[in-house]
Amino acid sequence: MLYHIIPLKIILLLNFSFKLSLPSHLKHCQELRSRGLNEHIEFYFVSCFYLIQIDHFGFLEDGTFKQRYLMADKHWKQPGGPVLFYTGNEGDITWFCNNTGFMWEIAEELGAMLVFAEHRYYGESLPFGPDSYRGSKHLNYLTSEQALADFAVLIQDLKSTLPGAQHSPVIAVGGSYGGMLSAWFRMKYPNIVVGALASSAPIWQFPGMVPCGDFYKIVTQDFARSGYNCDANIRKSWKAIENVSSTAAGLQWMTEEFSLCTPLKNKNDAFGFKNWLQETWVNLAMVDYPYEANFLQPLPRWPIQVVCKYLAFDSTVSDYQLLRGVSQAAKVYYNYTGSSSCLNTSQTATGSLGFLGWYYQACTEMVMPMCTDGVHDMFEPEEWNFQAFSDECNIIFGVRPRADWAGTVYGGKDITSHSNIIFSNGGLDPWSAGGVTYNITDSLVSIMIPDGAHHLDLRYSNDHDPPSVRAARALEVKYFREWIKQAKKSSTS
Amino acid sequence: MLYHIIPLKIILLLNFSFKLSLPSHLKHCQELRSRGLNEHIEFYFVSCFYLIQIDHFGFLEDGTFKQRYLMADKHWKQPGGPVLFYTGNEGDITWFCNNTGFMWEIAEELGAMLVFAEHRYYGESLPFGPDSYRGSKHLNYLTSEQALADFAVLIQDLKSTLPGAQHSPVIAVGGSYGGMLSAWFRMKYPNIVVGALASSAPIWQFPGMVPCGDFYKIVTQDFARSGYNCDANIRKSWKAIENVSSTAAGLQWMTEEFSLCTPLKNKNDAFGFKNWLQETWVNLAMVDYPYEANFLQPLPRWPIQVVCKYLAFDSTVSDYQLLRGVSQAAKVYYNYTGSSSCLNTSQTATGSLGFLGWYYQACTEMVMPMCTDGVHDMFEPEEWNFQAFSDECNIIFGVRPRADWAGTVYGGKDITSHSNIIFSNGGLDPWSAGGVTYNITDSLVSIMIPDGAHHLDLRYSNDHDPPSVRAARALEVKYFREWIKQAKKSSTS
Repeated sequence: MLYHIIPLKIILLLNFSFKLSLPSHLKHCQELRSRGLNEHIEFYFVSCFYLIQIDHFGFLEDGTFKQRYLMADKHWKQPGGPVLFYTGNEGDITWFCNNTGFMWEIAEELGAMLVFAEHRYYGESLPFGPDSYRGSKHLNYLTSEQALADFAVLIQDLKSTLPGAQHSPVIAVGGSYGGMLSAWFRMKYPNIVVGALASSAPIWQFPGMVPCGDFYKIVTQDFARSGYNCDANIRKSWKAIENVSSTAAGLQWMTEEFSLCTPLKNKNDAFGFKNWLQETWVNLAMVDYPYEANFLQPLPRWPIQVVCKYLAFDSTVSDYQLLRGVSQAAKVYYNYTGSSSCLNTSQTATGSLGFLGWYYQACTEMVMPMCTDGVHDMFEPEEWNFQAFSDECNIIFGVRPRADWAGTVYGGKDITSHSNIIFSNGGLDPWSAGGVTYNITDSLVSIMIPDGAHHLDLRYSNDHDPPSVRAARALEVKYFREWIKQAKKSSTS
Repeated sequence: MLYHIIPLKIILLLNFSFKLSLPSHLKHCQELRSRGLNEHIEFYFVSCFYLIQIDHFGFLEDGTFKQRYLMADKHWKQPGGPVLFYTGNEGDITWFCNNTGFMWEIAEELGAMLVFAEHRYYGESLPFGPDSYRGSKHLNYLTSEQALADFAVLIQDLKSTLPGAQHSPVIAVGGSYGGMLSAWFRMKYPNIVVGALASSAPIWQFPGMVPCGDFYKIVTQDFARSGYNCDANIRKSWKAIENVSSTAAGLQWMTEEFSLCTPLKNKNDAFGFKNWLQETWVNLAMVDYPYEANFLQPLPRWPIQVVCKYLAFDSTVSDYQLLRGVSQAAKVYYNYTGSSSCLNTSQTATGSLGFLGWYYQACTEMVMPMCTDGVHDMFEPEEWNFQAFSDECNIIFGVRPRADWAGTVYGGKDITSHSNIIFSNGGLDPWSAGGVTYNITDSLVSIMIPDGAHHLDLRYSNDHDPPSVRAARALEVKYFREWIKQAKKSSTS
């Protein structure tokens, strides 16, 4: 269940009346002014729609839909200046636009135009409008291949219609699933993009490529290194929950202790409660950033260290003491600002539409085995059960996942012959388990950020950034410059 | 109208009762013994069926169908011996199997297994059985992308189930559209094939990539160099046909002179007659082989030279004299063996199913502009009219072609970043107009065969082969060996 990768988060878009110099052909673009989350940067973009085929791989369905993309050309050096193209993932593109400060920060020095393309079926890019999620018939065109084709066609169109863009080298940038897309985009359409930055992209988190337990091992390590006995106490907490929730009084106590919006009433609720806690620890591992941030939730700097302060018990701790600590720890995640009156266990992330879409993708192509053993990780043992997962998918969506397809179509571990892809990964990020964490060739390179969580390098720079992420960003820009140079050279030769 | 690329031709498959050593898992394979067209080679293969997804790019249609492939492992050095994989084109795979003697001839020296995979919707690989061609709904899965995915999945399956094949490097081989597929296969699935031989593959015969008139220019050059005034007299013949067919007596004369099965009755018939002749000259250019052969038709060696003997008139020739020559020339193509009692102008090639499938492909992805001007070529002027073509497609199939898609998805002229593809082309072959006829990089190489017609290099060797095709084949094998060496090296490192 990967809905914790990139939950959807609505940001405020402030509409201003002042004029931007819109290219005249962009008749489908709206002028918008958006304020970045980082107070130091204020940026402007135009939000556009492009009519695109619903089905790129068949000709029976000849309909089109409006795909949204955001453009910012303030620093673009035309003609021929590069384009940094964000390959949108499973959510509203404005959110990724605001959370990819790296692109905004390097636009000027590269003289680059920025484009953020929304992934079909997310945000406002809905192939069948409000019916897009109605049944497997409408969901049929929600695949990564269709999304990549969207990006390719959009770039071809921009190049042929936007004055000065014809010879612009385009670099794909993306994080998480968006990073997988940017890597795959370069692999499948090297004619369209000269290179790709795939940040925290678990392109190997597919059947048979990496051990299914590595993801949760890294989550566990993050807690183990962040405080005394932290992972051990979380490992103990599952049994403590079992014990306490075995009586009505215990359930009542837990409901109050955790300030739950919906009371725990039975064993089944306790099961759901444990899943919710597990998701919480996973999410914390993903967003264990070195500064106060608001990615999934508003959180303090190094949030796992803060969480672990409440879990530093000795082995003699009682179940109730332990769970009181767990409760305080959970509230670091859910109530750092103190504004929540209760905790809602049915939500770990926001944006149901984004979740549903990703669930469908997991139920079709994006089959990512996960497992725990309770020994090498701090969770209750659970094997990866493809058949059960497939049956669940069939019940929910009427489709079955194809376990081997992603490996076949995107190359799995046999990607040596490709070029110009940076795989950056954070050592704290559980998704690095499925990432490319070593150099494959001179031009398929890995950048490790030992102190980094989920695509830290794509975020705005911050005074608290560790040296490793500063170095990573500098190296990424260096590769960008090389690719741009290569492209200019080959287009003039 | 490209149905002259690869018409379908049924060959005799002789069923023998003797036993081949079939791998036990190949339970869907039939034992067959087939005799090559070249008397010197007798080869054996098993004919197998593999259950494969109807739709690789969507999950709504979860049905499978039986894809046919042929296997020959007599010379295969297992474990790890290479696989030469023919990427089937628009016709019955047994025909390509029999007409690709090159693979049979090099199997032993490479210790290679041969696999010939049939393209979906052709031969016996029909996704919806007899309904496969019934309407655009059933035809929806007839695309090159689906075909490539078939090949990829089939190879993955063979590697995982066939003992000794797990580490076998696979090389794609194909001619004409099959050659385009083999090149694209390497581009899109470099994880599956270590290299590709794309023989006579017009991967640039798409909108905006090469001048639309080059194809017919080459046809014309073939005739110009094959006999005195040969192209000039064909250029003159169109007006002569107009003149003679303007009277009932003239139509009658032509019907008799050309021994037509169906009499010419009016101007419209004369128009169709001209198209048929034009196709005839094109086909002759494609099969202008240096020895007696039976590819599209039984023909003498250097058939255009034979044809041109009947067209070596001075400028003073009368319309009737000229057309008598044209008639004798056409009969070289249609009645070399003397067994035809009349000429059927409704057929230049055989196999209506193959034709219909290719027509659908041309009406969707395979948009190949062609034009003539009557000055640089010997045909009546005709512009390329995309809109008219699109309208025709819409009437016939209810679909419209997407002119730019092939260029976007397969890279057009921007293919520099790929590797390990040989593009071989014959100087006599009109399809070389859309082929890659120069080296792009060290590992995207062009091999020109000045005296070669359509994929001559893939045919059986022959005593009359010009040195250029012998050299081409030797060089191709040299590259194969290099790719195999590379693959072994990277799999052990």
